[in-house]
Amino acid sequence: MKDVDIPELGPHDVLVKVKAASICGTDVHIYNWDGWAAGRIKPPVIIGHEMSGYIVQTGEAVKYWQEGDYVSLECHQTCGHCYQCRTGQGHICRDYTILGVDFNGCFAEYVRVPEYNLWRNDEDVLPEVACLQDPIGNAVMATCAAEITGKKILVTGCGAIGLLTVGVAKALGAAKIYAVDINDYRLKIAEDMGATATINPLRENMVEEVQIKTRGCGVNVVIEASGDERCLQDSLKTVNNGGQVVLLGIYKDRVLLDLANEVIFKGVTITGITGREIFKTWYKTAELLSSYLSVEPVITHRMKMKDYEAAFQLIQTGQCGKIVLYP
Amino acid sequence: MKDVDIPELGPHDVLVKVKAASICGTDVHIYNWDGWAAGRIKPPVIIGHEMSGYIVQTGEAVKYWQEGDYVSLECHQTCGHCYQCRTGQGHICRDYTILGVDFNGCFAEYVRVPEYNLWRNDEDVLPEVACLQDPIGNAVMATCAAEITGKKILVTGCGAIGLLTVGVAKALGAAKIYAVDINDYRLKIAEDMGATATINPLRENMVEEVQIKTRGCGVNVVIEASGDERCLQDSLKTVNNGGQVVLLGIYKDRVLLDLANEVIFKGVTITGITGREIFKTWYKTAELLSSYLSVEPVITHRMKMKDYEAAFQLIQTGQCGKIVLYP
Amino acid sequence: MKDVDIPELGPHDVLVKVKAASICGTDVHIYNWDGWAAGRIKPPVIIGHEMSGYIVQTGEAVKYWQEGDYVSLECHQTCGHCYQCRTGQGHICRDYTILGVDFNGCFAEYVRVPEYNLWRNDEDVLPEVACLQDPIGNAVMATCAAEITGKKILVTGCGAIGLLTVGVAKALGAAKIYAVDINDYRLKIAEDMGATATINPLRENMVEEVQIKTRGCGVNVVIEASGDERCLQDSLKTVNNGGQVVLLGIYKDRVLLDLANEVIFKGVTITGITGREIFKTWYKTAELLSSYLSVEPVITHRMKMKDYEAAFQLIQTGQCGKIVLYP
Amino acid sequence: MKDVDIPELGPHDVLVKVKAASICGTDVHIYNWDGWAAGRIKPPVIIGHEMSGYIVQTGEAVKYWQEGDYVSLECHQTCGHCYQCRTGQGHICRDYTILGVDFNGCFAEYVRVPEYNLWRNDEDVLPEVACLQDPIGNAVMATCAAEITGKKILVTGCGAIGLLTVGVAKALGAAKIYAVDINDYRLKIAEDMGATATINPLRENMVEEVQIKTRGCGVNVVIEASGDERCLQDSLKTVNNGGQVVLLGIYKDRVLLDLANEVIFKGVTITGITGREIFKTWYKTAELLSSYLSVEPVITHRMKMKDYEAAFQLIQTGQCGKIVLYP
Repeated sequence: MKDVDIPELGPHDVLVKVKAASICGTDVHIYNWDGWAAGRIKPPVIIGHEMSGYIVQTGEAVKYWQEGDYVSLECHQTCGHCYQCRTGQGHICRDYTILGVDFNGCFAEYVRVPEYNLWRNDEDVLPEVACLQDPIGNAVMATCAAEITGKKILVTGCGAIGLLTVGVAKALGAAKIYAVDINDYRLKIAEDMGATATINPLRENMVEEVQIKTRGCGVNVVIEASGDERCLQDSLKTVNNGGQVVLLGIYKDRVLLDLANEVIFKGVTITGITGREIFKTWYKTAELLSSYLSVEPVITHRMKMKDYEAAFQLIQTGQCGKIVLYP
Repeated sequence: MKDVDIPELGPHDVLVKVKAASICGTDVHIYNWDGWAAGRIKPPVIIGHEMSGYIVQTGEAVKYWQEGDYVSLECHQTCGHCYQCRTGQGHICRDYTILGVDFNGCFAEYVRVPEYNLWRNDEDVLPEVACLQDPIGNAVMATCAAEITGKKILVTGCGAIGLLTVGVAKALGAAKIYAVDINDYRLKIAEDMGATATINPLRENMVEEVQIKTRGCGVNVVIEASGDERCLQDSLKTVNNGGQVVLLGIYKDRVLLDLANEVIFKGVTITGITGREIFKTWYKTAELLSSYLSVEPVITHRMKMKDYEAAFQLIQTGQCGKIVLYP
Repeated sequence: MKDVDIPELGPHDVLVKVKAASICGTDVHIYNWDGWAAGRIKPPVIIGHEMSGYIVQTGEAVKYWQEGDYVSLECHQTCGHCYQCRTGQGHICRDYTILGVDFNGCFAEYVRVPEYNLWRNDEDVLPEVACLQDPIGNAVMATCAAEITGKKILVTGCGAIGLLTVGVAKALGAAKIYAVDINDYRLKIAEDMGATATINPLRENMVEEVQIKTRGCGVNVVIEASGDERCLQDSLKTVNNGGQVVLLGIYKDRVLLDLANEVIFKGVTITGITGREIFKTWYKTAELLSSYLSVEPVITHRMKMKDYEAAFQLIQTGQCGKIVLYP
Repeated sequence: MKDVDIPELGPHDVLVKVKAASICGTDVHIYNWDGWAAGRIKPPVIIGHEMSGYIVQTGEAVKYWQEGDYVSLECHQTCGHCYQCRTGQGHICRDYTILGVDFNGCFAEYVRVPEYNLWRNDEDVLPEVACLQDPIGNAVMATCAAEITGKKILVTGCGAIGLLTVGVAKALGAAKIYAVDINDYRLKIAEDMGATATINPLRENMVEEVQIKTRGCGVNVVIEASGDERCLQDSLKTVNNGGQVVLLGIYKDRVLLDLANEVIFKGVTITGITGREIFKTWYKTAELLSSYLSVEPVITHRMKMKDYEAAFQLIQTGQCGKIVLYP
C-alpha cells in the first residue's frame, strides 16, 4: 500500500475514481506470486481489474464520455487489428493486454482507462454490483454458449463464477440446475442463487446422483467451472446424447478424456470460454442485472481496500464468495 | 351435444378419457362457422384439440404406452414422408391433418389418438394446465425463435397466446417486456404474467411510448400476436437495427409494409411461426411449466363441457383469457 | 472533372492512390440527381466508394499500415459507440456516414481514408477485382444469411449484386441456382456465373417454371435483388415450407405481402440485408476470391475515369454488368 | 458365402435387390473379428450396410414405396420414442440397432429394410455412387458442423471418410484445404478430391507446415478423421483462436488434451459427430452429388461380391480408397 502519482492521460484515456473493486482469482495468483504470476507480471504494477467508479477527467480526444459518468470497465485491451478483433471476437484477440496485470489496475484510488474499454452503468446499480460485471460476464457468456431454456444443467465448481453461473442459468429459464462442489459453504450460496439441488462429491457419487435426479436421462448441459480433471471426466458421463459441455475452469495439466464414448458416439459439443464478448456480453449482463438476476448471495464480504491482507487471507480459507473492496 | 359411439382403435391408436379441454381460436372460427370453417370442415366432426386425460385403451401394436398413462396430445397429424417431415419440421408438413378439425377431437368424453401424437405429462401438472400445452407451445416456439435473454421485447396482441408469450419471455430472461392490446382486461392479465409495462393504443401512441421507455433505442424483438396490419406496421417502427420480428397473429388480408426502411436498411429479420415443433417444443414447454413458468393468470374461467354455449358467448365479449372445459 | 487539392491527413488517416474504381448503383442515383440524392448529398463532393489502390502517405498515429500497402476500403464510417457498433454490427450503425456520399470518395486520383476502414489486398488479386469487394461483400453477406449448401436457390434480379450472388451461391455448394431477370444480356452473364437455369418473366411464368424445375417442391431460398414488388410477391410463392427469403433489392414504395399464407403458415423467415459485416464479410469475400469464386463475367467494361459520362450513359441502357474505371 | 432364404416382410418392410454395396470400416472390424465385433455381433448375421438397389416387394402397410423404386438406406434403426428421436436427433437415439451389425445386412442378393429407412435415389446417380451416400453423409454432417465457407480447413486422416470430407469441404467453398495422412497413396486421392496441399507427418512437421502455409494464422477448422491421439494433439495446435474442431475418427483409448491452452484460452469448440442426421444429411448429400461433388477419385476398386476375401485383403494393405462390391 503506497502513494503513487495520479496517471497522465493520453488523448483517448479517462481517469476514473474507484468506488468499489472486487477480488478475482487472477489477483490471488498474483498475490501468492505463483509460477504464472512470476512469468507474466513485471512489477511494480497495481493489480485489480473488477471495479466501478466515476469519471473525473477525460483525454482531449474523448468525445462520448464526460466527468461524472458512472462506469465500469472491460479489462482486456485488444489490438484492434488481428483477424479476431476485426471479426467481433476481441475477447480472443491474439495480442491483448490486461489492466491490473500488464499495466496498472484498480486496487487504487484512481485508475486510467482507455475510453474504448469503458462501460456506462445505470445509476440504480450499486457500485458493489457494478464492479462484478466482469465475472458475471464470464458466467453470462458461458451460459449463453449453451441452449439453456427448459434444459437440465449441471454446474461443477462453485467458485464465484460457478455461483454466478447458477444465477444466470436460472434467469435464462433452465429447468433444473444441479450445483457441485466439495465446499458446503459455497453449496449453500448455490442454493441461494437458485440451484435446484446441490451435490458434494465428498459425500455423494456425482454421476449416480445426476442419473437418479434426471431419471436416467442425464443433463443437457454441463458448465465446468472447477478446473478439476476428475470432475470433468465424471461430468462427461452425466451428459445425454446431443448435450453440450462448456469449459470455464482452468486445468493445471493436460486432461485425459474418453472422447470416443463420451463425445463422439454421444454427439456432444465442448466449448471453451474465456473472458466475455466485448461488449455483447456486457449488454446482456447489464440487462439481466436490471431485471431477473440478483447476485447478492455471492457478495459475502465488504471490506476496506487497506484491509486487503485480511481479504486475501480469507480467500485462502474458502469461506467466502466474492469480496468487495472500497477505497 | 349428443351421444356418439366410442371410436374403434387402429393398431397404433389409443383411446384417451378427457379430463380437461381448453377452447382455441380455431374452435371459435368453427363455432361461428365463418368462411374458413365452411371451406375446411366436413361435418359432423367433434371439435377441440387442446386436452389432457388418461389412456383407457391401447391398439394392438402400441408398445410404449399403456392404460392409465396421463397424456396430452399434439393435434397435427403429419404425413411423415415429405421433405419437411423427414428433416424434423413436421409442424410445417405439406400434407397434415388436424384433430378436431379434419377428424373427431376432444370436446367429448373420449378421444382416439394415434400413439405418435401422444405426450406424457408429469403427474404433478394439473389437467387444466396440461391441456394448455398446445397454445403454450405456440408461445414457446415463437419466443425461442428470437434472442430473448437480456433483450427488450414488445408483445403486440394479448389474446391467449400473446399473454402466454409474455410469461415465456419472462421465463427466458427478457430484460423488459412491453405488452400491447386495446383490451384493458387482457392488459391486466399481461401484467400478472410479467409484463414490465402495458400500452393501450386506444389511449397511447405505441411507437412513441416504446421510444420513451427504451430511451430511443427501440426494442430488440417484436412478437406480433395481434394479426392487425396497423399494429404490425407500427411495431416495425419500434424495432432497433438488427432486431427480430416474430409473426404469430394471422392477417385476414395482405399487409402493406415499408420493407426498404423498416427491414432492409435496419437489417431486421422476420420469422413466421405456426404450430410448434413436434416434440422439441413440447419438451421445452413441459420443462418450463415444471420450473419458472406459471400460466395461472391466463386461465380465467373453468366450466362444464355441457355449458359450451355460455363459454363461446363469453369469448365473444373479450372478457376472458383461456376457458377450460371439464367433461 | 476538375483539379482538387490532395487532402490533408488526420492522425489516423491514410492517403491512397486509386488504381481502379467501379461504379455502384448509388453513384448512378447521384449522377442522375434523383430525389434521394438531392436530399442526402451536399455538393461539391467527389463520388465513388468501390476502389483499390496503394497507400502513398500515412497519418502520424497510423501504426499497422504503411506506404506501398495494396488496399481496398469499407465505405461506411461507423460511430463506434452505439449498441450496434459495440456488438459487432457496425454495418447497421445508427449514425454512420459513407465515403463518396457524405464526404469525398474515390472517383479521383487520390482518396483519404481512415485507417479503420482499410482492407489489405493480396498482391495476386487484380485491381479491377479488388475494387469489387464492396459489392461482392453484399452478395456474400446476403448469401451467407441463408442455408445454401445442397439447397435450391432462386436469385431474382440480375443487376451486378444479383449476378455476384449467383457466383457466391455456387461457391457455397448450392444444389440448383435459378436466376431471374427481364434483361437477357444479364441472364447470359448469370449463366456464366453458374446459374443452373435462367427465367425471363417477360416470356415465362416464374412461379410455374420454378415449380416445374423443382418437381413441385419449390426453392429453399430466395435472394431478392430486384427491388420489384411483383417479383417479391411471386418469389414468395416459390419458397417451400421452412424456407428463407433474403431481401437486398430496395423497394421504392411500400409492398403488399400475403404474410398469413406465404410467411406464417409456411414457417418462412425473411432477412433484410444492407452493406456487409465489417470485417467478417471482407475476410470471407477475399478468401472466396482466392479460391473458387470468379467474378470475371460480371466485369463487362473497363474505361478511363475521364470517360465517366460514357460509362454512366452505358449503365442507363442496361447492356452492361460492372464497369471499372481507371484514373 | 452361402445360400439363405429370402427374408419374410413385416407390414412396414420392403425387399430390396442389391445392385452395389461398399465396404465400411465397421465391416472390416467384423471380418477381422476384433474385440468390438466379438462383443457386439451375434452370428450368423449378414454384414454390410452401404448399398443401392431396387425394391422388388413391399409389405402390406407400405404406402409411399413401390416395386421398382431405386433406393439406398439409412442403416440405423432408431427407437422413435426417446428424447433424441422425438427431437430430430435420431442419429444419436439411445437405443438404436444397425443393419448389417445387429441384423442381416446388404452383402447379399436381397436385403429386407423397414420403409422408414429408405432413401429414394435419382435415376441418374450410378449404383456405385448411390451406395456411398452413407459414408458421404458422415463427411457432409462433419463438414456442415463447422463454418466452412471462405475458411482454412485441416483434414487429418485420409481414410475414405476423410477423403470424402475433402471433397465436401471444397463443395462448400472452403478457402484452403490441407489434407494429412501417413499414406501417400491416399494423399494422392486427397489431391484429386480438391485438397490445396497435402502433408505427410512421416516426412514433415504438420504443425510447422500449417503455420507456414497459413502465414502464422493457423486454420479455422480441423476435421479429425484419423482417430490418432498424437494427430489430434498436434491439430489442436494449428487451430486459431475461435476455431472449430470436428471429431469423426474413433480413438481406441482415452486421449490426453491440453484443454486450458488449446481450447479454453483460444475459445475453441469441439464437436463429436457420429452417423448422419436422418434424413437432413441425406437431402444435402444427394443434392451435393447432383451438383458440385464428385466422389469418383475415392472409388478405387470395383469387385464381385463373391471376391470379398480379396477385397478385405486389399483393405489391410492400405492401397485403396472405397471398394464397391457387385452381387
